[in-house]
Amino acid sequence: MAEKKSTPSLMDNIINLCKRRGFIFQSSEIYGGYNGFFDYGPLGVELKNNIKQAWWKDMVQRRDDIVGLDSTIIHHPMTWKASGHIDNFTDPLVDCKESRMRYRADQLFFAPVIVGDETIGYVSVLEDENMQTAAEEQAKDLKRKLGKQGEMKAVVLKDYTQARPDEYALIPSPATGKPGSLTPPRAFNMMFQTYVGALRDETAVAYLRPETAQGIFINFKNVVDTGRVKIPFGIAQVGKAFRNEINPRNFIFRSREFEQMEIEYFISPDADWASLHKGWIEYCMNWFDSIGIPKTCLSTYDHPKEKLAHYSKGTTDIMFTYPFGVQELQGVAARGNYDLTQHANTSGKSLEYFDDSTKTKYVPHVIEPSVGVDRIFLAVLSAGYHEEEVEGEKRVVLKLHPRLAPYKAAVFPLVKNKPELVARAEALYKKLQNRWNVAYDAAGAIGRRYRRQDEIGTPFGITVDFDTIEKDDKVTLRDRDTLQQIRLSEDELIAYLSKKIDG
Amino acid sequence: MAEKKSTPSLMDNIINLCKRRGFIFQSSEIYGGYNGFFDYGPLGVELKNNIKQAWWKDMVQRRDDIVGLDSTIIHHPMTWKASGHIDNFTDPLVDCKESRMRYRADQLFFAPVIVGDETIGYVSVLEDENMQTAAEEQAKDLKRKLGKQGEMKAVVLKDYTQARPDEYALIPSPATGKPGSLTPPRAFNMMFQTYVGALRDETAVAYLRPETAQGIFINFKNVVDTGRVKIPFGIAQVGKAFRNEINPRNFIFRSREFEQMEIEYFISPDADWASLHKGWIEYCMNWFDSIGIPKTCLSTYDHPKEKLAHYSKGTTDIMFTYPFGVQELQGVAARGNYDLTQHANTSGKSLEYFDDSTKTKYVPHVIEPSVGVDRIFLAVLSAGYHEEEVEGEKRVVLKLHPRLAPYKAAVFPLVKNKPELVARAEALYKKLQNRWNVAYDAAGAIGRRYRRQDEIGTPFGITVDFDTIEKDDKVTLRDRDTLQQIRLSEDELIAYLSKKIDG
Repeated sequence: MAEKKSTPSLMDNIINLCKRRGFIFQSSEIYGGYNGFFDYGPLGVELKNNIKQAWWKDMVQRRDDIVGLDSTIIHHPMTWKASGHIDNFTDPLVDCKESRMRYRADQLFFAPVIVGDETIGYVSVLEDENMQTAAEEQAKDLKRKLGKQGEMKAVVLKDYTQARPDEYALIPSPATGKPGSLTPPRAFNMMFQTYVGALRDETAVAYLRPETAQGIFINFKNVVDTGRVKIPFGIAQVGKAFRNEINPRNFIFRSREFEQMEIEYFISPDADWASLHKGWIEYCMNWFDSIGIPKTCLSTYDHPKEKLAHYSKGTTDIMFTYPFGVQELQGVAARGNYDLTQHANTSGKSLEYFDDSTKTKYVPHVIEPSVGVDRIFLAVLSAGYHEEEVEGEKRVVLKLHPRLAPYKAAVFPLVKNKPELVARAEALYKKLQNRWNVAYDAAGAIGRRYRRQDEIGTPFGITVDFDTIEKDDKVTLRDRDTLQQIRLSEDELIAYLSKKIDG
Repeated sequence: MAEKKSTPSLMDNIINLCKRRGFIFQSSEIYGGYNGFFDYGPLGVELKNNIKQAWWKDMVQRRDDIVGLDSTIIHHPMTWKASGHIDNFTDPLVDCKESRMRYRADQLFFAPVIVGDETIGYVSVLEDENMQTAAEEQAKDLKRKLGKQGEMKAVVLKDYTQARPDEYALIPSPATGKPGSLTPPRAFNMMFQTYVGALRDETAVAYLRPETAQGIFINFKNVVDTGRVKIPFGIAQVGKAFRNEINPRNFIFRSREFEQMEIEYFISPDADWASLHKGWIEYCMNWFDSIGIPKTCLSTYDHPKEKLAHYSKGTTDIMFTYPFGVQELQGVAARGNYDLTQHANTSGKSLEYFDDSTKTKYVPHVIEPSVGVDRIFLAVLSAGYHEEEVEGEKRVVLKLHPRLAPYKAAVFPLVKNKPELVARAEALYKKLQNRWNVAYDAAGAIGRRYRRQDEIGTPFGITVDFDTIEKDDKVTLRDRDTLQQIRLSEDELIAYLSKKIDG
């Protein structure tokens, strides 16, 4: 597995499969695409819905201590004043005045080129795994071009946010290769802005939410007043969020429109937050494992204390080994009572909770497990994508957990020119379809039909053959992963599928 | 039923119930609310999800001819140029320069006040069921104030879009009661606008989709190329849409952020569109009936030919008798091949389909059944809300279909001070909870617990009592609507629920 992960082309294979089989399309492709936006096709929407529904079932419906919420994408703009997003939700941006290109300053790296004791110029590169080599090549070129003799010192890259003011004019633009056109970095707010109502002035400014979490905090009192909840309890929300990323990348990993699944888990200020925080991390990792993101691909990263916001008690990211590197899949943050306090102060409404068990009033603290649906989607594909040799032929197989697979099963008549057999297969298909999303395929050799389903992750192939109608009244069930085939009666089949799929 | 519908307070009762029990909250309530936006609370999100999932199961998964899609909310802006939304998706807006109030011109009514042969002034009112009376009162006041004698002619209201230019300055503003401050009506585009990328100029303008339909059209070719679909087939999509309504109203009926469920059903240009159109209308009405919106509350309205867009072959609305009147629940439009043709022309990409059965190429026509999730939500509540007398007491009951009910069942131990009985009830609860969303309630008299569940639409109450543990090993199942009680073993209970809930 680890070896497979380092193959650079795995990502290409996944992207190609997504396009070829209708999981994911570049948004607005007929208009040349739209950077940072992706559409989910017929199979993609099923997989995505299954991820969301599995999460909701396990986090909300099967637990007694979590309730759901669905707040709007556009809220009252004071929400974002209180949360700090209007003032602080920024990325450092640098413009090239000549090319009009824009870069994230922390992804633009530069270095002085020093020959002997003289700084003969600067080089710049965009963040990349090969950027050090590229910068060194540029440095050698510069030395040659300027005809400088002597030993060149090591090329030490820093990002543009670390440039001194006197260096801005000396660093070449990556677009033009020439210095003098880059601006100093400036804070760029990543919230998409719009206007609500007929006016277009500052009284009408509103924002698309950059996270679903704040919709939970501003509804805290409503839920406490109506939901029969008692601390500790959580509020969960699934929904779209929007960030005007300067540099969207890695397919659906970092896009401008994405979907989050967040929980705010409210606890007493006296509770042992560290142990609850740890418990949530383990719980989430177990959940990932249960849906087919194996623990061997997961790790954790504790944010260093000195980099945390002043109110934060600790943040741990659950990392997944994506084809492009180890990256954040989920964050689990212990945020103290910062958000509720901010909304209470800004709105002037009390957000205290009366604890019946201790007869005290307090503003609860929170543990916040927060995950992106699209990141789970990509993790599931990355972990599930395999190329194998079966019977001397290469097969591409998506080993998706049955809960997540777009089709739970595919029904095949062995041949399509035997009406009795076809009728039987169709009847079985219709019966299964009433309960699950299943496919039916009568076209082509049975082996080819298996391959088609393997590639889209259908866990079970069900074949109606001559024995079914002439002898034993049973069908063949083929397991996608083990390739084992067993014969089952219809009742046995339904019991088997039910156990495997509905988990 | 019809009688109940005309009670003006039914709407208030529904809104109160929604707030009291956590179905729907005004968005951003702690910041004074946000006009035209609503949040769904713990019970609301379950009901809303159940509506979407029932629709998806019946329209997509249980059908062989419809596939799903989930496109982004923000697409390439050329989409909206091609579809005509940038040029034509407008409402007529009128400003009051003095009060800075804004009105929809077609909801602002005015009339000249004519005494004898003299027009002595104008009156104005906002659209309302009592507007005629209010206008007549105003007219009488004006006549009295000006001391005019003689007979007043009938007050004939017209909306402001029909005002002559010379009348604008004479019509009083509804805000101030004085003439001279209303502007001529102007076209106000209802799309929310934003900027994508770091620039804020016209190259960066983008829109929040005002409908999900166009995301389907621009993905038509992708789906045809990858989805193994054959005409006739449909593409279905569920998702948020946004309209900057000048005057949001009637609770969640007309809001600024809402959720749509749309299908584009692609047919051959030679197909009998009229009969397919009619078929879809019937199919949708039957579906509404199946989820608890009875046909007795539904009617149809055919848009008059002369009011249709030039490309439209016909549009029929399925109307529901809401507490505030008969209003559109769903539209079913026959749109010809207008949209695909527009996108083909604008993008320069062919959107022709090769029909294997006739060996011809054509741009398909569409039938478009389009419905709002929030409108179904409100229809379901309106049809399901009942106040009844049971055993001499008033009960509020939401008669929701079991597929839609937030909780499918509630488990009660008859008493809470008998550990064996409580343990048995909890075990049953946990078992049912693994499969369905169920409630558990041990607090208070059993009658009160029934009422609590009646009010939120839980169809089945399951009581574990002394007989359960001491005698027959059975539980009592109480039906919310009939109030009948039956005794069932655990296996019988699960079979019973399964049949009723999973439909």
